[in-house]
Amino acid sequence: MSLDDNSLQMFQFIKRDALDSINIDPLQTGGKLTDAAKDALLEWGDGYSVCDYCGGVLDLIKKPPIEEFVHKMLPEFLGVGAARVTNGARESKFAIYHSLAMASGQSGPKSGYVVMDSLAHYSSKVAAERAGLDIVFTKPAEKPDYLIRPHDFLDAIEAGISEKGKKPLAVQITYPDGNYGNLANVLEISKIAHEYEIPVLLNGAYSVGRMPVNAKQLGVDFIVGSGHKSMAACGPVGVMGIVDADSDYAKNLFQKSKYNKVKEVELLGCTSRGAPIMTLMASFPEIVRRTKPENWEKEVENARYFIKRLEDTGKFILYGQKPHQHDLIFFEAPGFYSISEKIKKGRYFLYQELKEKKIHGIKPGLTKNFKISTFGVGKENLKYVADTFEEILKKYDEI
Amino acid sequence: MSLDDNSLQMFQFIKRDALDSINIDPLQTGGKLTDAAKDALLEWGDGYSVCDYCGGVLDLIKKPPIEEFVHKMLPEFLGVGAARVTNGARESKFAIYHSLAMASGQSGPKSGYVVMDSLAHYSSKVAAERAGLDIVFTKPAEKPDYLIRPHDFLDAIEAGISEKGKKPLAVQITYPDGNYGNLANVLEISKIAHEYEIPVLLNGAYSVGRMPVNAKQLGVDFIVGSGHKSMAACGPVGVMGIVDADSDYAKNLFQKSKYNKVKEVELLGCTSRGAPIMTLMASFPEIVRRTKPENWEKEVENARYFIKRLEDTGKFILYGQKPHQHDLIFFEAPGFYSISEKIKKGRYFLYQELKEKKIHGIKPGLTKNFKISTFGVGKENLKYVADTFEEILKKYDEI
Repeated sequence: MSLDDNSLQMFQFIKRDALDSINIDPLQTGGKLTDAAKDALLEWGDGYSVCDYCGGVLDLIKKPPIEEFVHKMLPEFLGVGAARVTNGARESKFAIYHSLAMASGQSGPKSGYVVMDSLAHYSSKVAAERAGLDIVFTKPAEKPDYLIRPHDFLDAIEAGISEKGKKPLAVQITYPDGNYGNLANVLEISKIAHEYEIPVLLNGAYSVGRMPVNAKQLGVDFIVGSGHKSMAACGPVGVMGIVDADSDYAKNLFQKSKYNKVKEVELLGCTSRGAPIMTLMASFPEIVRRTKPENWEKEVENARYFIKRLEDTGKFILYGQKPHQHDLIFFEAPGFYSISEKIKKGRYFLYQELKEKKIHGIKPGLTKNFKISTFGVGKENLKYVADTFEEILKKYDEI
Repeated sequence: MSLDDNSLQMFQFIKRDALDSINIDPLQTGGKLTDAAKDALLEWGDGYSVCDYCGGVLDLIKKPPIEEFVHKMLPEFLGVGAARVTNGARESKFAIYHSLAMASGQSGPKSGYVVMDSLAHYSSKVAAERAGLDIVFTKPAEKPDYLIRPHDFLDAIEAGISEKGKKPLAVQITYPDGNYGNLANVLEISKIAHEYEIPVLLNGAYSVGRMPVNAKQLGVDFIVGSGHKSMAACGPVGVMGIVDADSDYAKNLFQKSKYNKVKEVELLGCTSRGAPIMTLMASFPEIVRRTKPENWEKEVENARYFIKRLEDTGKFILYGQKPHQHDLIFFEAPGFYSISEKIKKGRYFLYQELKEKKIHGIKPGLTKNFKISTFGVGKENLKYVADTFEEILKKYDEI
């Protein structure tokens, strides 16, 4: 019997040793809780806490003001006609794809398909796959810029139609992609898709909550965002919005159950039902503040400062858009790689060196290529990280 | 522009006024965090916290010991060959139904179906509906016991086969049901289903984490549980298990993506990725303790004490199994109803009276019929609640 008291203790009071480090992991920088969210976490931590106040529909709870958040503030923030809170960006994407597949009868054997940029996150692919949909990708993005151009989407749509004999059910744009932080020309791509009357889904997991994004202004039909990745919320939680709340797409996405007339099928009735939605709401004022153009511009400035500092050593090569437009940054680091080749500790040296300096976020073993995020890290900390990178190169005689 | 600083303040520092009350809401009693879970909540609250330690597969993270939890302890606890953590019991059910529907090609237009007890929770129905499956229910359970007998399942299976010309994809048993706390004869029902070679899914949202439940011993094939409802975890989080980890059912349920060879499609790659899984783990030692037969027996004793106290007034009628086997209790309360008919405040009087006495959990406006849970409330508090009920009846001259 392994369920004895001694074995079970391993699950309790576990410390998170990355907590006192500067964290530059792209997954972490936008999900750090605000003080208000930490307060909400403790107050609303118990399992189903908000359900104490529910009259049957979670997103219509008046006190705490979930209805106000979901049906007024969030739509305005996302630039959509209707929004919902979900269990994450991938769950939002799946709900959208699943409703499109089911409504068109193109799930399962008579499979439909969607078009995505070749830099789409794996969770987008899995969301389509789970919905029984195939995917046609834009042509592979190429080194060193990894740009995806509107024309690539036109080609993919045409290739899809030619191969499958029918239109894709949707076009998805990853904004930005999760590797290089590239921002595609969404407006132009949406125009192309709309010429074919194909709806456009914007995956804003790395934009909604970090930078100004407005679905309507970008010309897309659906938008999804991630609470735990970019909205300073306790996961799992995400958002989903649709620009035209009166469209058939909206009708299908928000279809009520035939067994329970107030519960939405694609949301399985209720989604985020405790601390995640309360932390999302508690951080929302800060999210609105930090996504104002002037604040986002400062973040981009910080990212560019950090890139310049590293490029100036001659030992870092930036991949992705130049000048860079986002906090998500991918480097090739020939200096670090060269060190890993010549020393005994090999490729784990970088993780160890950074750990000693209380810098977290580059996976153990990576030296040649890695991505980091500068979001919310602040200029002073970024200077410290850049200084540390330089010191490491010097220590091993690379510069 | 409604997203101004003043309006946004409404989302912050919201107090949960039910927090200092005795809570007898069935949704709340099993989801109250342990002290260890509260510690985990703060330590691991940031968005994607556990992902700092992930090598690509969330449930294989070694430190914190998520792999040990998901792949060793949890299967042993549930009595299954393989288990996963999900975003909730309903999400577990949907994953199972969806994998069955997709693998059999019976999603969408060529719809398959499942058989469920007539007391199934709406979330079970919505899970099947979202998977494109119809439902055949057992005949309506009847007042006052609302028992569902093995024979009812036999009848429903036969009716399904006769109506649809094919076997159901699964049989679901709600254990206990969410209204009356009735525990069906699962072993017997499973035998019936297995004679038809139909897999059985046990919905343990109100049992897993509260009472001893072992899927293998109960003869079922799948089991689901709710972390926020019954496992003292911060929601949304659930568990899912399959007894035969080598079966085709398991192969379909845990199918890896064709786009990413380590990510499971039905889980969309990752599920619970922060505080919910860490709180689930932190509370697990207490969950193991409280579900030991001797501890659960004390809970049943407390439930029976409470029932007896109320029945002794002559003004409460218990619905459901007698003697009662579970902490979930449904009453008809003619005394309270009579008061609501004769006083000015009407049916809201009960909520108000209880609020003054710091008792929470009966929805505002309910008097004639309501359900409560005695789980973990403790005999002393239950005595206080029973005393208060009596006092209210006396105050309004009902006894």
